[in-house]
Amino acid sequence: MLADPGSITDVDGIAVGHHQRTGRGWRTGTTMVLAPHGAIAGVDVRGGGPGTRETDALAPWNLVDQINAICLTGGSAYGLRAADGAMSYLAARDLGYRVGPEPGQVVPVVPTAVIFDLGRGGSFANHPDASFGERACRAATHRQHRRGSIGAGTGAMAGGVRGGVGMASCTVALTATDATPATTVTVGAICVVNARGSLIDLASGKPHVSVHGLRRPTPADRTALVDYIARRSLPSLNTTIGVVATDAAITRPEATRLAMSGHDGLARAINPVHTLADGDTLFAMSTRRIDIGDVDRVARLSQIQSAAATCVAHACVDAILAATPAVNAESYGSLCPSALR
Amino acid sequence: MLADPGSITDVDGIAVGHHQRTGRGWRTGTTMVLAPHGAIAGVDVRGGGPGTRETDALAPWNLVDQINAICLTGGSAYGLRAADGAMSYLAARDLGYRVGPEPGQVVPVVPTAVIFDLGRGGSFANHPDASFGERACRAATHRQHRRGSIGAGTGAMAGGVRGGVGMASCTVALTATDATPATTVTVGAICVVNARGSLIDLASGKPHVSVHGLRRPTPADRTALVDYIARRSLPSLNTTIGVVATDAAITRPEATRLAMSGHDGLARAINPVHTLADGDTLFAMSTRRIDIGDVDRVARLSQIQSAAATCVAHACVDAILAATPAVNAESYGSLCPSALR
Repeated sequence: MLADPGSITDVDGIAVGHHQRTGRGWRTGTTMVLAPHGAIAGVDVRGGGPGTRETDALAPWNLVDQINAICLTGGSAYGLRAADGAMSYLAARDLGYRVGPEPGQVVPVVPTAVIFDLGRGGSFANHPDASFGERACRAATHRQHRRGSIGAGTGAMAGGVRGGVGMASCTVALTATDATPATTVTVGAICVVNARGSLIDLASGKPHVSVHGLRRPTPADRTALVDYIARRSLPSLNTTIGVVATDAAITRPEATRLAMSGHDGLARAINPVHTLADGDTLFAMSTRRIDIGDVDRVARLSQIQSAAATCVAHACVDAILAATPAVNAESYGSLCPSALR
Repeated sequence: MLADPGSITDVDGIAVGHHQRTGRGWRTGTTMVLAPHGAIAGVDVRGGGPGTRETDALAPWNLVDQINAICLTGGSAYGLRAADGAMSYLAARDLGYRVGPEPGQVVPVVPTAVIFDLGRGGSFANHPDASFGERACRAATHRQHRRGSIGAGTGAMAGGVRGGVGMASCTVALTATDATPATTVTVGAICVVNARGSLIDLASGKPHVSVHGLRRPTPADRTALVDYIARRSLPSLNTTIGVVATDAAITRPEATRLAMSGHDGLARAINPVHTLADGDTLFAMSTRRIDIGDVDRVARLSQIQSAAATCVAHACVDAILAATPAVNAESYGSLCPSALR
């Protein structure tokens, strides 16, 4: 495991909940990233096989300027219905775009992206439904530190080993300007890693992304890993999806740019990535708690964007390090280089 | 009524089905445009408040190159779940993107757009669910001529009068080239008109789009119409959604361009249109039955694109002319200029 890489819930105003089902033909789940007091959001779709919902609403030139939830889920396109449960949860709390004067007369916009995990629990027909989304909302906490084979990552695979949910966060010290005092903002990421590509450099046995504190794998580790992955037939559809969040008060176009920056983290952590067979989609959310001023804004935004890419890369590595070794002979746990444990 | 403006099902390979519910608090429904043998598709979102699903998959640079259904539905974002029923219907028939060797191991991609009609039947909580999508699929026919207050147009309003479902079609004679014989292709459109803007020029009492065969409205008609619309408070969220289809064998980028051309038809028929409060979204489908060759292709495509805009404009006018006069005092039927009946 990594020394604590942090959580997206380190960002003030962000909560995360998971719901999953395993056994009896099931191995899938749903993860909900909530902003109960609202967030502005953006999205960037860079995989060739995306399964999405309500991404058009996030275009910065469009109407809806606040959302309360983003849904990440297994089940491929069948799992898009998990968002229905989040809509019910939010509408019951009068959260959403207001369309009438009465309580509950709201339309919650719940942007959603899916990973392909059909059949990984044994039955192709088992996928998340609305109850998964609602339960993930109910399970949400502002101090979420669970990761690995949970929520939308329950059935994830990545480059032949187990994938899962990973998270990371960091603080970014913005230097003072004449007009704006020095201030610190937080950036966090959550990724569901179900990539066709590998996160591990098979020559070294270590992650592509340099991570402090990992032991050097032994030659035997590397041989075992390479042999293991070479024997596996990779599924044809794969995806890394996730959310980058910050408390910095950015605009909607800047949130779209932040989602774009997050994809650089995917490029560093996963190889190959963004292929025609991946549905890689990243969202960005800002809870707008901390003013970053107008002076030197480009420089400040660049710091935040850079941090987003780093957090996404670390969240991806965190996902495979935290993934539960599979319960069967297909386990990667027993073959994982000791350096990765 | 217009002299028969045709149907999108005049395009070889296209079927349309409707399901709706009215009374006891309900006034909403779902319309499904099916291509049982497959179609390539594109989309263009030009309204400021879109509610969509699976639009990212249609980007021409992405993986999925054939779809079998597009879902148009009431219920605002809550209605996005209608697509789940279409997925079930298609998967049961082994139609969708193949992800495994067994029958049913497919992921149907069902691009979807919604209109805002919440509360128009009396209860805000009543909206289409998966059963609407499945029933609309089961009701589909290749000879669909029903229009007006049906399917996704059941609860539609347009510029203060009843909206609804409209259709139009035309044939396009492509001239011969050295390499390609003269050939005729068909273009059709279906639109669900729920626009904030009006389709009727209040100065003349006639549609913005010139339509043959309409009588000139009387001054009393115009006065009644203007007074009626002026008294109405327009709902805040509105949308025109639809599909343009052709049997011409166009590519996916060309289908995207065809959807873009369709929006010119909206611009001609509806004023204002494409506002921040509209979610205007048009899809395009090609069943690729008729080769249009490579020589003079731009000129041939231009003919088809122009026809798409015309069909969309006529489909929009058809929608309000075919809409059932409302059953209550809010009726537009009794106030509609005689020229429009």
